[in-house]
Amino acid sequence: MKYAPTPFCRDRALVGELASRVLKGDHRALGKAISIIEGGGPARRKLIQEIYPRTGNAFTIGITGPTGTGKSTLVNKAIEEYRKRGRKVGVLAIDPSSPLTGGALLGDRLRMMDHSLEREVYIRSMASRGDVGGLARAARNTIRLLDAAGMDVVIVETVGAGQTEVQVATAVDATVVVLMPQLGDEIQAFKAGFNEIGDIFVVNKADITNPAKTIFNIASGVEEKNGWRPPVLKTVAPKGTGVVALVDALEKFGKFLEERGLREGRMRQRLEAELMEAAFSDFCDEAANRLKGEKSWRLILGQVSKKELDPETAAGRLVKIIGKLDGTPNA
Amino acid sequence: MKYAPTPFCRDRALVGELASRVLKGDHRALGKAISIIEGGGPARRKLIQEIYPRTGNAFTIGITGPTGTGKSTLVNKAIEEYRKRGRKVGVLAIDPSSPLTGGALLGDRLRMMDHSLEREVYIRSMASRGDVGGLARAARNTIRLLDAAGMDVVIVETVGAGQTEVQVATAVDATVVVLMPQLGDEIQAFKAGFNEIGDIFVVNKADITNPAKTIFNIASGVEEKNGWRPPVLKTVAPKGTGVVALVDALEKFGKFLEERGLREGRMRQRLEAELMEAAFSDFCDEAANRLKGEKSWRLILGQVSKKELDPETAAGRLVKIIGKLDGTPNA
Repeated sequence: MKYAPTPFCRDRALVGELASRVLKGDHRALGKAISIIEGGGPARRKLIQEIYPRTGNAFTIGITGPTGTGKSTLVNKAIEEYRKRGRKVGVLAIDPSSPLTGGALLGDRLRMMDHSLEREVYIRSMASRGDVGGLARAARNTIRLLDAAGMDVVIVETVGAGQTEVQVATAVDATVVVLMPQLGDEIQAFKAGFNEIGDIFVVNKADITNPAKTIFNIASGVEEKNGWRPPVLKTVAPKGTGVVALVDALEKFGKFLEERGLREGRMRQRLEAELMEAAFSDFCDEAANRLKGEKSWRLILGQVSKKELDPETAAGRLVKIIGKLDGTPNA
Repeated sequence: MKYAPTPFCRDRALVGELASRVLKGDHRALGKAISIIEGGGPARRKLIQEIYPRTGNAFTIGITGPTGTGKSTLVNKAIEEYRKRGRKVGVLAIDPSSPLTGGALLGDRLRMMDHSLEREVYIRSMASRGDVGGLARAARNTIRLLDAAGMDVVIVETVGAGQTEVQVATAVDATVVVLMPQLGDEIQAFKAGFNEIGDIFVVNKADITNPAKTIFNIASGVEEKNGWRPPVLKTVAPKGTGVVALVDALEKFGKFLEERGLREGRMRQRLEAELMEAAFSDFCDEAANRLKGEKSWRLILGQVSKKELDPETAAGRLVKIIGKLDGTPNA
């Protein structure tokens, strides 16, 4: 009698096969694997289990900044430069389908597709609509897939508007913040946010006006961290101006992290934050469903609705109930 | 011997006194109380306990939309119109100190301060930097304070960029989305987000160009909900054009909610979401601290760092550990 696998076993076997094709650098397998990661189902866990031991080799780069600063073109040119240096490059473009910027990246992404034809470049986009924590997690696992597939460099491109995008843009070895002259408010606001996350700053579109003032403003807000003073570079992406210097700076920063033994520590810190987030997110999803089945939840909600109990006291009581929930149904 | 209150009792007594002054409509007490809410300490709970039974009377309005659509001026004019109708108005302006829009509202807020001189208007701003969930919670409780202080109308002004701002802008009876002609991408993106949250739409700055196309685009994306078709209004805020119609529409919507018995149900839904969020946020804060003290946490983190365990399997194990944490320290 032939062995008849259950659907679960068959899925596991298929995921195992997919993983081994990803590890060989198969682009079609990579595409399927990323879709599994995005889907967030149980196969995701098996997949990550298989490929995780083979990660940690790629140098990972986050590229972020306001909309309209020309990040995609800059990423295009950086890919070309990395190709000249013989590196395999994986790109993950986060497409911000938020009310304010939705769809803006689509054209950019299509322009990037020239590179997809090459064997040593893999480009993928991911929508940022929907569940916030889920995106950061999917992005981290996609970086892992690209890494395990043998990419030497993995670039994640985001628009730095929201908490998630910043989270994604900093889940990497090096974060590049792209700005441009004449940003006005954005440059003012720069000091409030971007200056903390950038390891390298770029003033792109440096040909539209004299960028000296913008560069000065940025440089004066930048602080040295662990012996690295983030450089402020000037680029004109469509012409490729300054792109060699940008890739040089990235490689220099990579070496700096290795030589100082900082890369490990930074990885561990990111891992710590990631595990906390993932575990609490999963816990809360499960516990919220169980809580909604509890009599005490309906009772408390009713009391607050009738103003017999205030929301803050109610939250305190619910915290205790959550702590005592177990896996057994007790509605 | 005189009774010597412990600091805790004294704080409770002070908060009790503050609450009773808030309930009498004392603006200085209101200012202090909002600061306590913003601070997020234990006094917050006592304060909300005291004032919560006296809430639910104010009609609460969220005003949101992209930066630069003139929301603050529109709010100014709406305040004037409400004052003419004899209503007391409380305003909470969320100041988005995000990298992309930081500080932009400061000028607007200062311009609004004319109204602060009046006894029947109270205006307060709140920074949106930092903890995301915390802001939504502080905003909800600030709305409660303004409500309990006797305001007939409470307006919350946000910039609708992020998840939090949308959360805040919809924690109210009526949500007004403010757009303008020539928004281009924003109007395109409109269909992706704002159209779901608005009860009333406003095309402000209707004098800069013919707004007909913008109005048509919005109106064609708007859907009837429970028998209410969100109107699309035209305003020129600095001149006050269309402001009477906006306040009329808000009052009409308020009546609609009452007459259909929808207000209660909407409140209960908001309360349900709020209690879930608050309880899980508090639970996770406490549990994360306890988890960090657990041997098993350090063990798992170490295994993942050494690639002996993958992050997804680790998250699964941590979920089980979180479920078993209790209040007793066991590092």
